[in-house]
Amino acid sequence: MINTLVAKVKRVLQGCNVIAASEEGVKLLGSVGSPFVIRVQIALVLKGIDYKFVPENLANKSELLLKYNPVYKKIPVLVHNEKPISESLVILEYIDETWTQNPIFPSDPYQRAMARFWCKFIDDKCVAAALKSVFMVDEKERKKASEELSNGLQFLEDELKDKFFGGEEIGIVDIAALFIPLLQEVAEFHLFSKGKFPKLHKWSREFYNHPVVKETMPSKEQQFAYFKVVTERLAALSK
Amino acid sequence: MINTLVAKVKRVLQGCNVIAASEEGVKLLGSVGSPFVIRVQIALVLKGIDYKFVPENLANKSELLLKYNPVYKKIPVLVHNEKPISESLVILEYIDETWTQNPIFPSDPYQRAMARFWCKFIDDKCVAAALKSVFMVDEKERKKASEELSNGLQFLEDELKDKFFGGEEIGIVDIAALFIPLLQEVAEFHLFSKGKFPKLHKWSREFYNHPVVKETMPSKEQQFAYFKVVTERLAALSK
Repeated sequence: MINTLVAKVKRVLQGCNVIAASEEGVKLLGSVGSPFVIRVQIALVLKGIDYKFVPENLANKSELLLKYNPVYKKIPVLVHNEKPISESLVILEYIDETWTQNPIFPSDPYQRAMARFWCKFIDDKCVAAALKSVFMVDEKERKKASEELSNGLQFLEDELKDKFFGGEEIGIVDIAALFIPLLQEVAEFHLFSKGKFPKLHKWSREFYNHPVVKETMPSKEQQFAYFKVVTERLAALSK
Repeated sequence: MINTLVAKVKRVLQGCNVIAASEEGVKLLGSVGSPFVIRVQIALVLKGIDYKFVPENLANKSELLLKYNPVYKKIPVLVHNEKPISESLVILEYIDETWTQNPIFPSDPYQRAMARFWCKFIDDKCVAAALKSVFMVDEKERKKASEELSNGLQFLEDELKDKFFGGEEIGIVDIAALFIPLLQEVAEFHLFSKGKFPKLHKWSREFYNHPVVKETMPSKEQQFAYFKVVTERLAALSK
C-alpha cells in the first residue's frame, strides 16, 4: 500500500521528465512479450520516460531494425535523438546514466561491479539454459540445460538477501532476472516453489506485484503469443 | 616519441596514486599469459595502480580462487581491500570507476554505451570464435568458427575510425580486443595483413607499440606456455 503510494508520488514528481523525454524523441524498437524488450520498458517506466513503441515483426524484420542494429539485427533497440543502442543490458546502463532519477544501479563502485557481475551471470548462465530447457528438441540436451539452470538459480537464491536483488527497491539485477518469473508464469515451468528456491519464489511474487512491473508487463496472452512465434521460428531453423 | 614522453610524464604524475593504491591492497589472481588477465594488467598500469600478482595454477586451482570466484572458478580475480571482483570486463569498469585518472571509458553516455556494445561483441562474437578457430578438433566446426571470426573482424574493421578504438589513446575497446593481435602473434594465426583487414593490421601494430602495452605484455614464450596449458586442458576435457 505504502509502496504503491510512494510510486505514485514519484511518478507525479517525474512529470516534468516525462514531457522532456517525449520532446527528446525516445523510440523503442521491440516486440510485445519479448523479455529483453520488457527489461527496457520497465527501466523507462521506472524513470518516468515517455517513449514511442515501434513494433517489429521478427519474421520480417524492418529496414529500420537492420539499419539500427546491423550487427545482431535483434530487438530491443532504443533510439534516443536518432542515435540507436542495442543489447538490453547496454541499453539499461545508458538509461541509468542518461536519466539519473530513480537509479537502477547502486552508486557504490563495488556494488555496481557486483550488479554487473550478476546481470552477466543471468544472461550467460540462466537465460540461455532456461531457453534451452524449454525449446531444445533433444531430450538429453534439454535435461543438461535444466540442470545448468538449477545450478544458476541456486547461486541467485543464495545471493538474494533483501526484498529485491536491488534492496528495498527494484534494481538492475531484478530487471535482468525477470526472465525467470516470466518463464515460470508463461511456460508454466516449475522453476521454483515454496519448497524449491523459496527466496526466488517470494521474490518473484514481490516482483510481479511491484506497481511499475504490473503496469509494464504485457498480458499473459501477449506473452504466450510471443513465445509461440519464437518456438515456431526455432523449430523452423532446426529443420 | 612524443607519446612515450607523455606516457612517462603521466606515470610520474601518478606517483602518489601508485603509493596510495599499494597501501589500499590491490591483488590480482591470474596466470601469466592469459589474455583476460592481461586486460586487467594493462588497465592497472594505465592507471598507475601498484598491485600484487598472485599466480594461479589452472590445473590445480587454489582455495583462494575458489573462495573469491565460487561461481566461475576462473581468473582473473581482482581483490581490492579484500573484496573480490571477477569477469574481466566487470573488473575493467570497476577500475575505471574507482581510479578516475587516465579514463579508459568515454565520458559521454552514448559513447560509453557504444564502448560497452563493442566489448560485449568482442567477447560474444570474436573471442569465442577465435578460440574455436584455434582449438576445435573437428575441422567442420573449426571452419565455421573461422568464418564467424572473419565476420566479426569485418565489423571491427568498419568500426575503427582513429588510431585506436578509443581515439588517440587506448581505451576499453582496445583493451578488450587485445585478444586479436595476441592470437595473430602467438598462434601465428593469419587473421589480418596489409591486404586483409588493413585497419586492424595497423591498429595491432600501434597497440603493441604503446608504451603501457609494451611494458605489460608477457614475453612470447610466456604466452606460448599459457596457450599450451589451455590447449592441453581442452584436449583432456574433450577425451
